[in-house]
Amino acid sequence: MRTLRLTIQYLGTRHQGWQIQPHGSTVQGHLEAALEKIFGERIRAIGAGRTDAGVHARGQVASLTTSSAIPLRGILLGTNNLLPEDIRVMTVEEVPTGFHARHDATAKDYAYRFSCETVLSPFLAPTVTSLRGELDVQAMALAAGQFLGEHDFEAFCGPEGRLKNTRRTVSASRLEEEGQGVWGYWITSGGFVQYLVRTIVGTLFEVGRGRMKASSIPEILDSKDRTRAGPTAPPEGLTLERVHYGRKTGILATPGGVW
Amino acid sequence: MRTLRLTIQYLGTRHQGWQIQPHGSTVQGHLEAALEKIFGERIRAIGAGRTDAGVHARGQVASLTTSSAIPLRGILLGTNNLLPEDIRVMTVEEVPTGFHARHDATAKDYAYRFSCETVLSPFLAPTVTSLRGELDVQAMALAAGQFLGEHDFEAFCGPEGRLKNTRRTVSASRLEEEGQGVWGYWITSGGFVQYLVRTIVGTLFEVGRGRMKASSIPEILDSKDRTRAGPTAPPEGLTLERVHYGRKTGILATPGGVW
Repeated sequence: MRTLRLTIQYLGTRHQGWQIQPHGSTVQGHLEAALEKIFGERIRAIGAGRTDAGVHARGQVASLTTSSAIPLRGILLGTNNLLPEDIRVMTVEEVPTGFHARHDATAKDYAYRFSCETVLSPFLAPTVTSLRGELDVQAMALAAGQFLGEHDFEAFCGPEGRLKNTRRTVSASRLEEEGQGVWGYWITSGGFVQYLVRTIVGTLFEVGRGRMKASSIPEILDSKDRTRAGPTAPPEGLTLERVHYGRKTGILATPGGVW
Repeated sequence: MRTLRLTIQYLGTRHQGWQIQPHGSTVQGHLEAALEKIFGERIRAIGAGRTDAGVHARGQVASLTTSSAIPLRGILLGTNNLLPEDIRVMTVEEVPTGFHARHDATAKDYAYRFSCETVLSPFLAPTVTSLRGELDVQAMALAAGQFLGEHDFEAFCGPEGRLKNTRRTVSASRLEEEGQGVWGYWITSGGFVQYLVRTIVGTLFEVGRGRMKASSIPEILDSKDRTRAGPTAPPEGLTLERVHYGRKTGILATPGGVW
């Protein structure tokens, strides 16, 4: 048996997220169907991050095992030939037996992009959330810093995630100007709870609009009360940028999912 | 009567080009329908460049006249509210009576983007043509230079364009590396004949693959024989980047269609 690691990019706009579902178009569903045709056997592709409907990935990672001996380049070209144009396998490599894309991931970087320009360019619209009005970006940057460190994120978690342990450690949380009027909120954590990034961003928007204060974030975290945080921001601005792997797997992540 | 100038961006992927047609989705068709609703009168929007089906624009310009007194910001927001997401009016301004987006244009810049990467990122795919195999980019750059100056472009012109005068002057014709494995062919001319950019690019691809020589371009131009030039390159890589206006209109173009 070979263990393979795939890096995958997708525009999530037309898909119901990563995870395979009985109905609807999913990235995992398309990928497993393509791999099944290539390998002639049922394949289970394990994704590092379960991106939600409409969320994109520039550095998703999947692992799988196969008894097939097809060369890596054949897998790469064959799979892409069968996938829709908005999902691409960027690299395929053989990794040590036992590699698991989700369990072995040490951290993930997500970026949430937004713009307050009066008109958002259609070249940016697929991956950037367009907002009306002006935002106090300095207040938002201050608020972003409040999420750093270990916290119980129950107040920033979707209904399904709240049934589980919601303690996580955030190692990066910052705003960056990306040019053309686009801002990116970048967050890195070893693990994410349901809707964490989008709820943090929805709360940052409230801070940017002057409806909440940066200094209120610790209180909201302590309250563990979802109704105290801001609304969940829409999915189109969110991209899984990179998955990090530690020394255990012998391979480190580099930007954009290129290894 | 007021004369207005609009700058427009669009992803051409889902549209049958700029020019309105009895059937099918066109940029002019969507724009005129939106303007008619806003102004309550029939509007004819004149475009600077008639982009073909599947071709994009980052700096298309349209002119129109209206008897309406609606403020410019209301026109901007109202029109975008009615347009599909992949077509955006970026700016609206009042210009001197008589301004004509096509007749007053002194030059247009087109860029044609292509990539020979094994896998093209889905984030780039909508506006970049993906090619198999390697290209000799240095030979292509040499060939690109051969189009500079005044020529009869009949050999590089589509069937409809060949019925008219095909003499044009090209003031810029060069290859540029744009990063992420993407190359751009940039061309500037006072006027373009049908399929000119895509036929030049199709010919450059032949040169890059070693099937034609850069030094054969002058001969092909002289032959006025369409069968001597390369095939017409696919539309997805082509973008109308900018329209230039001379002193006559008192306003000069800046990159990206921002004025």
